[in-house]
Amino acid sequence: MTESLFRPDLEERAAAFFRHLQDRIVGGLEGLDGGHFREDTWDRPGGGGGRSRVLSDSALFEKAGVNFSEVFGQLQPHMASSLPGEGLTFHATGVSLVLHPRSPRVPTVHANVRFIQRGNVAWFGGGTDLTPYYVVPADATAFHRALKDICDRHERSLFPRFKGWCDRYFFLPHRNEPRGVGGIFFDYLGVGAEATAGEPAPPPGTDWEKDPERVFAFVQDLGLGMMDAYGAIVSRRRSEAWGDREREWQLLRRGRYVEFNLIYDRGTLFGLRTDGRAESILMSLPPEVRWRYGAAPAPGSPEAASLAAICSQRDWAGDDPG
Amino acid sequence: MTESLFRPDLEERAAAFFRHLQDRIVGGLEGLDGGHFREDTWDRPGGGGGRSRVLSDSALFEKAGVNFSEVFGQLQPHMASSLPGEGLTFHATGVSLVLHPRSPRVPTVHANVRFIQRGNVAWFGGGTDLTPYYVVPADATAFHRALKDICDRHERSLFPRFKGWCDRYFFLPHRNEPRGVGGIFFDYLGVGAEATAGEPAPPPGTDWEKDPERVFAFVQDLGLGMMDAYGAIVSRRRSEAWGDREREWQLLRRGRYVEFNLIYDRGTLFGLRTDGRAESILMSLPPEVRWRYGAAPAPGSPEAASLAAICSQRDWAGDDPG
Repeated sequence: MTESLFRPDLEERAAAFFRHLQDRIVGGLEGLDGGHFREDTWDRPGGGGGRSRVLSDSALFEKAGVNFSEVFGQLQPHMASSLPGEGLTFHATGVSLVLHPRSPRVPTVHANVRFIQRGNVAWFGGGTDLTPYYVVPADATAFHRALKDICDRHERSLFPRFKGWCDRYFFLPHRNEPRGVGGIFFDYLGVGAEATAGEPAPPPGTDWEKDPERVFAFVQDLGLGMMDAYGAIVSRRRSEAWGDREREWQLLRRGRYVEFNLIYDRGTLFGLRTDGRAESILMSLPPEVRWRYGAAPAPGSPEAASLAAICSQRDWAGDDPG
Repeated sequence: MTESLFRPDLEERAAAFFRHLQDRIVGGLEGLDGGHFREDTWDRPGGGGGRSRVLSDSALFEKAGVNFSEVFGQLQPHMASSLPGEGLTFHATGVSLVLHPRSPRVPTVHANVRFIQRGNVAWFGGGTDLTPYYVVPADATAFHRALKDICDRHERSLFPRFKGWCDRYFFLPHRNEPRGVGGIFFDYLGVGAEATAGEPAPPPGTDWEKDPERVFAFVQDLGLGMMDAYGAIVSRRRSEAWGDREREWQLLRRGRYVEFNLIYDRGTLFGLRTDGRAESILMSLPPEVRWRYGAAPAPGSPEAASLAAICSQRDWAGDDPG
């Protein structure tokens, strides 16, 4: 059992930051879109609650959800084996968002930052990843470089480690396809990066993450900066033309998003298994989706090129020119 | 370890019957629809293969898939704990179908019959359940009575037991909603109905199911008869009028179907975890789906009445007049 290195007020400071972060991000998105988010506040019967903010059928976003939650109480015994730490008492707080633009030229984006405490261990997790329907390499590069810049300000080893973690996490084994062009993903920062049952072992950690205050500083920096590159991509792509063909491809690719979130996503399954609010958890699902049996892009088409770019899992930030 | 009571040729006879059953069902559906199913035969790298037959965008069905498969080989170790029996050698054969009609007045139906062998134990499983968008009580009753008639010809205790099993199995805990008006569901017939890890314990079995030949006779009778009541419902409802409002409700309810299949369905997860052919397994997903945040039917609307009828899980066959 690890001695806790966390200052006792960290869970409160993390929750306060995440509340502020939700306001900041929603404000930024309202500026980009022109629409207004609807807010639902909710209580979790077992303890805690949250604020779900959703924008539906606006000019830019077909569906955009930004959720803040702070939940606590007792873990169900069947959940206990899948988390680090001991005992059933837990506290979890974070912000998560998924934005589904109407235009197939504008990528879907997901981002999440969270702080989880169980017994006397606690850790930060999170990340952000980009899912374009039509990959524009310059956009993928800009997205990755912005994340690399934030990571590098804190510790040089973070970006390559978190980029690889993202590539492995946002992957659909039954399709043998990544979800998108990736980004960064990290978890268990602060508990010695123990692997948990049923999860691929995380990459080995460094001394850096043994200091929870350093990790919190990184999470704050990431939270406040992670949407900037996405905003710039939206501004570049939102007025590009598209038609039925692009819409059809977007709807089919959204099917992969649903498959990932319902079969594999740790946050979704954690939420559903801890009696979270289903509508807030499943806010991440796209507004409209298609599944067409045996659908595959024609060789040589822009759709085939886009899928190949996604499957390449290349080093978009350009550290490795190969 | 149970001594196997199965005649060694049962797996071959079951597979031969399931092949024939697929032909019969597809022939019947082509008669009903007027369209023709496309067939893909496929091999599974680890052993076995199947025949997927699909009808897309026809007059009656937006998507209809009828799959036969016979797969065998070695279980992945992470699958082993979730199945009765010992060792890693397995053989599984069956027919499964999901039909998604275009009209919201015509219910979606699922049916499956299967025979699985692991080590020296083997069992039959299967069932069929009806998912109406607008519940017509007379149709639900006709569907349940037809299944009750088939069950009763074999053993009087089967129907109430399998009806209750279906109500518990096709249930979405995170929505606190059944998937539809139910039908019958059964599994592990022939291995003493052992509970397996992570599954709710099946209802206690009877002597009847200790004779694999009796069970096989029931499965054949069910397979050959289970689509008749559905065909009659289709004929009664296919020409009823509907519009945008009914379509919207259908697309939202289809979202629940996706949630069930990807989060909970044993067959789907078994297939994906045994390296099955993803397109054939996910053939069950509806062709077009919507998720709308916070959507709920207006009080007093036909949609609210339909959802209430689904949630009632009543004894549609009418054994219990309450």
